Amino acid sequence: MVIVEQISEMQRWSDAERRQGRRIALVPTMGALHEGHLSLVRDGKMRGDRVVVSLFVNPTQFAPQEDFAGYPRDFERDRRLLDAEGTDVLFHPAPQEMYPEGFDAEIEIRDLSAPLCGAVRPGHFKGVATVVAKLFNIVRPHVAIFGCKDYQQLQIIRRLVRDLNFDVEIIGHPTVREPDGLAMSSRNAYLNSEERKAALCLYRSLRHAEEMVGCGERRGAAIVAGARAEIAREASARIDYVSLCDPESLREIDLVQDAVLLALAVRIGKARLIDNMILKP
Amino acid sequence: MVIVEQISEMQRWSDAERRQGRRIALVPTMGALHEGHLSLVRDGKMRGDRVVVSLFVNPTQFAPQEDFAGYPRDFERDRRLLDAEGTDVLFHPAPQEMYPEGFDAEIEIRDLSAPLCGAVRPGHFKGVATVVAKLFNIVRPHVAIFGCKDYQQLQIIRRLVRDLNFDVEIIGHPTVREPDGLAMSSRNAYLNSEERKAALCLYRSLRHAEEMVGCGERRGAAIVAGARAEIAREASARIDYVSLCDPESLREIDLVQDAVLLALAVRIGKARLIDNMILKP
Repeated sequence: MVIVEQISEMQRWSDAERRQGRRIALVPTMGALHEGHLSLVRDGKMRGDRVVVSLFVNPTQFAPQEDFAGYPRDFERDRRLLDAEGTDVLFHPAPQEMYPEGFDAEIEIRDLSAPLCGAVRPGHFKGVATVVAKLFNIVRPHVAIFGCKDYQQLQIIRRLVRDLNFDVEIIGHPTVREPDGLAMSSRNAYLNSEERKAALCLYRSLRHAEEMVGCGERRGAAIVAGARAEIAREASARIDYVSLCDPESLREIDLVQDAVLLALAVRIGKARLIDNMILKP
Repeated sequence: MVIVEQISEMQRWSDAERRQGRRIALVPTMGALHEGHLSLVRDGKMRGDRVVVSLFVNPTQFAPQEDFAGYPRDFERDRRLLDAEGTDVLFHPAPQEMYPEGFDAEIEIRDLSAPLCGAVRPGHFKGVATVVAKLFNIVRPHVAIFGCKDYQQLQIIRRLVRDLNFDVEIIGHPTVREPDGLAMSSRNAYLNSEERKAALCLYRSLRHAEEMVGCGERRGAAIVAGARAEIAREASARIDYVSLCDPESLREIDLVQDAVLLALAVRIGKARLIDNMILKP
């Protein structure tokens, strides 16, 4: 596995691979890798002749009061895990390589960034859209793989690609869960053992809502109330949002007529956890 | 000359040319072509193995009260002129091809968009940056050529390329002028013969300031006052701005120590005209 830190070197590598007709898959990460990330890498290996994993804790997608400084980092462990998966290139730029003096560009996907996490984390998705556009121009992948756990992010990146005409295929990879159902996340490392148990309320809430829909419930307000009640059984859980919305537009819906997205953000201890599920009537 | 209207067809053409190792030059235009545009095309022919000219009157860079509807259009004439210059592809998409239903993306180059035309035309440079990023992803040029007459636009596109890591070389082509000094512009077509004479005040103002600097004047305020006075001699001219600023940051400067940009925007009749000159002490 080659480790590349310079943007110009990464572009040259990709140009050379492309000229030889090889298909490049990109898996963007912020490191602190878990089995979810590794399953994206394996997916990338099947879809491309070469797999590039980027590891960059992107400062611009964290608000000032958020956990940028404390975000888990373990480069040596990440490097070993990626090497063992057969990653071809680990792209690992320094912040000043990505954001030089006088950096002045910002990409916004307006409507899709307004609800859900966008309402609670202003500026977050501008940071995400901008860094992903940069990674696409630096790595020039044919295909890029993102986790469905970050559902709103995935939809924003799909829209970024469509609206700005990036020639990149976007793959949404199913959320990878612990055996008890907790969605894998680097931020699960923030949980102590009590909080780890409490964190199961997200998945229980999604499953409860799924059962409500399975039993014929179609009223959005009732489903959201059921999901909230399931979370509320955990005294330590503080709800950021519970939203039932259209899986494309992310606009809230009142009545389930087609597949809908149930999306949650819940704070437990110092962790802010998100999860989601597509519910089908 | 091939005329391409579909984005996917344009991308396929460029991919095929690139795979054969050919260098692609792009000249983005809004049509209503004049000698200034044609000199960009000739420059493109020298710099690339293939020249693509885009012709798209971009609605998102016009504010509601501006001249989008009345902007001069003559496709047949433009087509003939480009064909005669040996253009390889004329990319001519419909608005709904560029901005499909639910279009949601916006690129902003923040600080560089704040002064000069950005202060008078809010949203204009967001429209420019977004459509140019799209054109780069659609045409995938190695080099793109822009006129220096739109100096702020040129600097914004340079910053767009640097900050978002587009692998495109940006060329600024010197302003092409009428024999009497008026900068060529599609909007000169708005001028009647009286106004056409009055419009010379822009160039006279720039030349006057140049002479002031040549005679040793270094005080920004004095140079701007001299330039304004020259324009004020034309009763029909209304000044939007006269600004002496740093050619990189576009921040106003008080004292000429190095090369500076003098930039003007002046309304004459229903035309809003811009011009600029680099002044060297």
